[in-house]
Amino acid sequence: MNTMTKLVPTYADVLAAADKLKGHAHRTPVLRSATADRLLGGELFFKCENFQRAGAFKFRGAFNALSRFSPAQRRAGVVAFSSGNHAQAIALSARELQIPATIVMPHDAPRAKVAATRGYGAEVVVYDRYTEDREAIGRRLASERGLTLIPPYDHPDVIAGQGTATLELIQEVGELDALFVCLGGGGLLSGAALALRALSPRARLYGVEPEAGNDGQRSFRSGEIVHIDTPQTIADGAQTQHLGHLTFEIIRRDVDDIVTATDAQLVQSMAFFAERMKIVVEPTGCLAFAGARHGGVPIAGKRVGVLVSGGNIDLARYGELLAGRAAV
Amino acid sequence: MNTMTKLVPTYADVLAAADKLKGHAHRTPVLRSATADRLLGGELFFKCENFQRAGAFKFRGAFNALSRFSPAQRRAGVVAFSSGNHAQAIALSARELQIPATIVMPHDAPRAKVAATRGYGAEVVVYDRYTEDREAIGRRLASERGLTLIPPYDHPDVIAGQGTATLELIQEVGELDALFVCLGGGGLLSGAALALRALSPRARLYGVEPEAGNDGQRSFRSGEIVHIDTPQTIADGAQTQHLGHLTFEIIRRDVDDIVTATDAQLVQSMAFFAERMKIVVEPTGCLAFAGARHGGVPIAGKRVGVLVSGGNIDLARYGELLAGRAAV
Repeated sequence: MNTMTKLVPTYADVLAAADKLKGHAHRTPVLRSATADRLLGGELFFKCENFQRAGAFKFRGAFNALSRFSPAQRRAGVVAFSSGNHAQAIALSARELQIPATIVMPHDAPRAKVAATRGYGAEVVVYDRYTEDREAIGRRLASERGLTLIPPYDHPDVIAGQGTATLELIQEVGELDALFVCLGGGGLLSGAALALRALSPRARLYGVEPEAGNDGQRSFRSGEIVHIDTPQTIADGAQTQHLGHLTFEIIRRDVDDIVTATDAQLVQSMAFFAERMKIVVEPTGCLAFAGARHGGVPIAGKRVGVLVSGGNIDLARYGELLAGRAAV
Repeated sequence: MNTMTKLVPTYADVLAAADKLKGHAHRTPVLRSATADRLLGGELFFKCENFQRAGAFKFRGAFNALSRFSPAQRRAGVVAFSSGNHAQAIALSARELQIPATIVMPHDAPRAKVAATRGYGAEVVVYDRYTEDREAIGRRLASERGLTLIPPYDHPDVIAGQGTATLELIQEVGELDALFVCLGGGGLLSGAALALRALSPRARLYGVEPEAGNDGQRSFRSGEIVHIDTPQTIADGAQTQHLGHLTFEIIRRDVDDIVTATDAQLVQSMAFFAERMKIVVEPTGCLAFAGARHGGVPIAGKRVGVLVSGGNIDLARYGELLAGRAAV
């Protein structure tokens, strides 16, 4: 047994994470839509993590990871690099657990996100994304100040935490025939795999990636982690360049297939969510539904879970996408 | 006791309506927002009728009214005139109860709304809103074809049905200190009054009207129903010209005050709902929150209910309002 295998989390870790999250994470609602059911010909169950604290599933993994810090780690603090939902999730979790947090963000990050992160009490360290390497900055801060670095997906406690979304979904609606999950670095998908294989073993599990950044699909099919340049897609939460080692280990073992969605399909799904279901979903959060609708997987007559991963999007941008004025 | 008094519905009618609606209307979620609580300094409970069937509270009153038809009325059918949520609600309820429905709509109604109404199986009769009188057309159809006309608010079964939203809210969260409800013709507000006075008698009840169309406020203060021209406001569900006789009877008896909100405040609330709570709310649905926030009523430390009345808005229009591109 190598070190990697020992680090791969299991369903027991998902259950333990659910225990840590009790009273801290929201148990998000599962929404139904008669229109979606008619459109796809199956029974769809939308697990709405856009209603999660800080607006995305990321809070689950972040809080679980931080809640396992030793007293010394808690005193020293956490560092994370992210311009997106992971940063907010770490900052909020750290505040709740009274752990000092340092977030490394690009100098051109949206001011609202920087303000929100500071609002949670985190120290924001700004870097120039064109000349500096955020991972190096994060590692330097970690070693200089004795901080613990929590990566956005390739960490066993993060993966186990993300698995609790699927755990709650199956607990609420029972076994499924299929589950669709967005795929960036693989944290949500690999966590989903752990819960799904335990609770609904016959269900098929699909990852959904942006068509422009199908490194996960290529990795899954080739059996090796494929690296790509930062893909051009509106799904900013899935602009990852490669899967993690831990997430890939689980994905290639437990996932049935990886399908893709175009940006136009994401906008179409975003409009569907707004118009028919009255919920605000960010582009990355639309991947799973777009994959269920357009990914070529047979859905008719099936019970299908759809993980809606988050709802954080700049409002002006969102408005322009809905009004059909923004290029995709 | 005059005829009018006998027609005024009571809390018993709300309970009876809840019974009729069981298994047909959604029991909509009550959402919380830590940010809203901080902003207003109280505890806010948002009853989200944007998640109701057909996207608005109107389904409650429509279904309740139709479910009380005699066998002869059912066979002959229902007629309603509306370009908005009442039309959809009548059409959907009629389909569910297998009652033929005729909806009188203006010739320039949004095509999506006409299509949705036809999609529910209703016959759409189109009129020219500049040269014809929809009420006259509705009454003519009623008498020629023996149809029963269900008005959008001034009807005891409609009022009792709308009251079930507040009934569910109080059942779920307990007694309140204050409740804010949007005000157009007064159906939702008068229904809310019936439930609130029975279940949370010390709570203060506020109607919230568009500033541009404050006929309700003027009626409330003068003690006589005031008629106005169709007001210019983005709150299309509250562009009514006067209160109903029944609704006014209840409102002047049970409501504590009527406050107003500007269109700019409605857009601000709409943006808050999208950005912070991840829900799509139509302008009329923003009235109650805008009134709680800007209406000058003391909220600090109070338990405050907010009825979010609906989420039906043309997506392009919604996008432009959020993106700050549309005039308000």
